[in-house]
Amino acid sequence: MTTERLGKQLRFITEIDKLKTQLRQTVLTDASRRENSAEHSWHVTVMAVLLHEHADCGDIDVFRVARMLLVHDIVEIDAGDTFCYDEEGAKDKRARETQAADRIFALLPADQAEEIRGLWDEFEERRTPEARFAAALDRLQPLLHNACTDGEAWRKHGVRADRVLSHNEHIREGSRSLWAYAEQLIHDAVARGILAE
Amino acid sequence: MTTERLGKQLRFITEIDKLKTQLRQTVLTDASRRENSAEHSWHVTVMAVLLHEHADCGDIDVFRVARMLLVHDIVEIDAGDTFCYDEEGAKDKRARETQAADRIFALLPADQAEEIRGLWDEFEERRTPEARFAAALDRLQPLLHNACTDGEAWRKHGVRADRVLSHNEHIREGSRSLWAYAEQLIHDAVARGILAE
Repeated sequence: MTTERLGKQLRFITEIDKLKTQLRQTVLTDASRRENSAEHSWHVTVMAVLLHEHADCGDIDVFRVARMLLVHDIVEIDAGDTFCYDEEGAKDKRARETQAADRIFALLPADQAEEIRGLWDEFEERRTPEARFAAALDRLQPLLHNACTDGEAWRKHGVRADRVLSHNEHIREGSRSLWAYAEQLIHDAVARGILAE
Repeated sequence: MTTERLGKQLRFITEIDKLKTQLRQTVLTDASRRENSAEHSWHVTVMAVLLHEHADCGDIDVFRVARMLLVHDIVEIDAGDTFCYDEEGAKDKRARETQAADRIFALLPADQAEEIRGLWDEFEERRTPEARFAAALDRLQPLLHNACTDGEAWRKHGVRADRVLSHNEHIREGSRSLWAYAEQLIHDAVARGILAE
């Protein structure tokens, strides 16, 4: 617990403040402005605390899910937010984000750099029950925002129901009950005319 | 795990989106705008994950600290953010926030309403090691922002060093090493002329 160690930790903590200026395509539920990735990260982490009983794997490590969600978007500080329906941006997303992870996590003391990088890799790979559940929440949250704002982000980008269904289908990998809810939400959105068929 | 239960959980999750529009006096480290309470909550929760080794009580429950920090400001949705150097606002802060807690947490299923209310009460009372450490981080974070922005919030509100020292002194209750850092930061701010003596 040297001053050098604390200095590195605080350097990282100051750096990640930049995530608050990284805008997503999702708008707030009152449609007043676009959401940023820091407040989104808070929102999905609270969701993990409250919704973990819906994870299909019963003995899930909720704190691990929470830690993944706290750090899952930090790479956007360098790589930017790639809209989930942006096929062009998706092509080099992985390369841009890996480079960002290499720089940003390395600000931390070596052991913590490794720990946080491990959480980010785990989230991206979606192989563990915790990562699958975290990814499910990360997808569900913008659906809730779209439902609250008459499909603001969907309409702005001309996204259609089949793409929303296929893009979000892996909510099912983390939680069948949340997927049942999400599917209903999407069908309702079509019925309400806020999502094109 | 009935639909009614999930409905209540999602009702709460949608409601707390409003915390993203609740502005604090602190500005972002690039001084571009005021910080909101949702992104602040994310920031201090990441700090808990990274800085828990500095807690004076060794066997601290870090997930408990994190959960307290995730929900500690939700009452501001109704009660507003009371600036920490606002003596007038401080008078009825507790009453306003208790009323807010009564309404907002009650949106959740009863067991979770009780759990989250318990976390908020624990944070406010600062009696457990976890609550003391959480409160220390909640104080340290705006100090870092002030140091990055030439004391923007301090100067705007004419706050002087003695009040900053006395207000933040309970960082020491959670972590002597973080308090040593904070004290130095405050003294440096005076030396740099960004905080009035």
